[in-house]
Amino acid sequence: MATGIRSDDFSIPAGRSRPRRIVLLGATGSIGRSTVDLLERDPRGFEVAAVAGGRDVEALARVARAVRAEFAAIADPDALGALKQALSGSGIEVGAGPAAVVEAAEREADLVVSAIVGAAGVVPTHAALRLGRDVALANKECLVCAGAPFMREAEKAGARLLPMDSEHNAIFQALGGADPATIERMTLTASGGPFRTWTRTAIAEATPEQALAHPNWAMGPKITIDCAGMMNKGLELIEAHHLFGVPAARLDVVVHPQSIVHGLVSFSDGSVTAGLAVPDMRVPIAHCLAFPDRLTTPARRLDLAAIGQLTFERPDFERFPALRLALDALGEGGGLPTVLNAANEIAVEGFLSRRIGFEGIHRHVAAACEAALKDGTAREPGSVEEALDIDHIVRERSRAALAMPAASGMLTLT
Amino acid sequence: MATGIRSDDFSIPAGRSRPRRIVLLGATGSIGRSTVDLLERDPRGFEVAAVAGGRDVEALARVARAVRAEFAAIADPDALGALKQALSGSGIEVGAGPAAVVEAAEREADLVVSAIVGAAGVVPTHAALRLGRDVALANKECLVCAGAPFMREAEKAGARLLPMDSEHNAIFQALGGADPATIERMTLTASGGPFRTWTRTAIAEATPEQALAHPNWAMGPKITIDCAGMMNKGLELIEAHHLFGVPAARLDVVVHPQSIVHGLVSFSDGSVTAGLAVPDMRVPIAHCLAFPDRLTTPARRLDLAAIGQLTFERPDFERFPALRLALDALGEGGGLPTVLNAANEIAVEGFLSRRIGFEGIHRHVAAACEAALKDGTAREPGSVEEALDIDHIVRERSRAALAMPAASGMLTLT
Repeated sequence: MATGIRSDDFSIPAGRSRPRRIVLLGATGSIGRSTVDLLERDPRGFEVAAVAGGRDVEALARVARAVRAEFAAIADPDALGALKQALSGSGIEVGAGPAAVVEAAEREADLVVSAIVGAAGVVPTHAALRLGRDVALANKECLVCAGAPFMREAEKAGARLLPMDSEHNAIFQALGGADPATIERMTLTASGGPFRTWTRTAIAEATPEQALAHPNWAMGPKITIDCAGMMNKGLELIEAHHLFGVPAARLDVVVHPQSIVHGLVSFSDGSVTAGLAVPDMRVPIAHCLAFPDRLTTPARRLDLAAIGQLTFERPDFERFPALRLALDALGEGGGLPTVLNAANEIAVEGFLSRRIGFEGIHRHVAAACEAALKDGTAREPGSVEEALDIDHIVRERSRAALAMPAASGMLTLT
Repeated sequence: MATGIRSDDFSIPAGRSRPRRIVLLGATGSIGRSTVDLLERDPRGFEVAAVAGGRDVEALARVARAVRAEFAAIADPDALGALKQALSGSGIEVGAGPAAVVEAAEREADLVVSAIVGAAGVVPTHAALRLGRDVALANKECLVCAGAPFMREAEKAGARLLPMDSEHNAIFQALGGADPATIERMTLTASGGPFRTWTRTAIAEATPEQALAHPNWAMGPKITIDCAGMMNKGLELIEAHHLFGVPAARLDVVVHPQSIVHGLVSFSDGSVTAGLAVPDMRVPIAHCLAFPDRLTTPARRLDLAAIGQLTFERPDFERFPALRLALDALGEGGGLPTVLNAANEIAVEGFLSRRIGFEGIHRHVAAACEAALKDGTAREPGSVEEALDIDHIVRERSRAALAMPAASGMLTLT
């Protein structure tokens, strides 16, 4: 468990004398926008070395000006001119294309916020990590697609990971400096999503609109679809395994529709510590931005008496087979989580573009895992690059299987 | 807030090489028996320097033999012969009378468990504290009766306090090494006791049997009565104030009938951490006994899905005026919490011996506080001894007011 993070890896600074330098990757997505909201509220507390976005030039330019970024990078290589124009007179440097996003990631900073959605986030986050930067991780794929080599490289470079996901952040806060050996169980909560009370048949026939109607969280479309089938929770278990160095057998999920308790740690003496908050991503983001200090955020404060009751249920593996699939992939290990994640990402795209039904996501991912186990694609990746190779192969296969256009080679990031 | 405890005051030992030496004060009471249960399960982990009890010779002798104590002290000075006889052939040293209990407290040890019920626990705990011993505190009166001087002396002697009460222990675990300045709110939960849903009139007429029927916890009679009127939670707020260095205005109570969440800490960024466990005192006791290590206890593990729901309500100050009384005493400060606690202890005795009704407890405590404010008895105690003087005066007055026999001078401890 040498690679698990613990909050006592961080010392409390005796009053920071200078602003914290931030790089924000994925500045125009959902997490990016919430991060910007917090940075704007504390202009003296932070300086922004770089921001990076995917394709939305106007949004990226707006963010760059709002946080007075020194450098703005857009992943779309054709957007350089438009970004230059949008930022003319601002004094903000601009770049375009995947290499420019990596350049943003590598700018000198105290903390790199990795909030690019999907596998596109892996390369720039990995670049920051190799320079020993502390990384606040909102991107799931770094750990799901390349968990073992990613954590090994973080340790080698002395980079520290702060979990920005609400569940992992809650667990990180609940852990304190706990010795991993005393942890009996680590539990992530799941809202259960929009289909929590639906029958298996109804779920199978769900439309993108129904799947996108998450009861508690406003998030991007990929993660919202993942939540609807509980694949999101499966991916989070894989993340937790790498992040905290806890074996799969000690990881657990409990369905908690109110999304107030986000994660729990159970110890060998019967004690349990938990992380709670109202469902507002600014809470875990603020925790990471200031850690081990604390910001004061405008997030609504938790009032348990006003909420009245919190409910908990066991997850239903029959109606949500994606959760079982992810747990099996974690148990199998090797490159199977990488395969699962890549096949899932393409299948979700296929569902959103109405090429397959909701049930088709799970069916496709299961078939992709089985095929990869048989032909050796699910071999243990020895490096982040090897994991990305597996990811690439599976994506192309999945696109072919789902009759989707081949990838353009352009990184898709928001 | 210099005197507040933080878990990072303790370093994690790199594998303890010798058993932890324990002194157990209050060995025959409820907390004492649970402590003995844990010590018996790990005979190689602990050695017991001394045990102390109040009047129950047989129980004390049984405990002393069970944990192979080196010294057994009984508070009743007339019980020396009986204790000698009960322990003959065991090789266990014996002593009787209050001085013997202090001697037990002062025996060389890594941790002194202070589990004597009531004000009788203050003198021996104070004795251990002055020698710089780490103290696991289950006795409320040390902090309620003499909080400020007690914490000052602990700091001076380098003694560290571990809260053994379920609520304070939960908060201690939830705190991690948090900077007190970032704490917005500290919340203790209250089960609401047996009268949670009763009308004010019904509560006023409650019998000792009804008040003793606590829904969740099996505890001694004094604390069970305090729970019924919520005075217990008031006393715990006073304790939390001293223990964690958090001002009264940031302390809060929420009623939580299931007694699963025991305490919560709310931070300035909107994050909340909480300590949970099934209602089993062995959980916080085990946490203190091993801290910062962890024992493995036989306590039932928390299963939120099996429990299904947790509910929360605001406390009702109309039906439970004792809570308001305690909060007011904490706000007023000086010696008023000392007065409140002494008057309450006698009033509870009066209720249990059917001299006054349930409502009479509150009425008596309120009158005692008012009188003490007027005549200067509620002055700020400068030392633990001065606090005990105030305690003594108020007790005698309360006994007189409630037409109870004067104290015999014998320490009443279990």
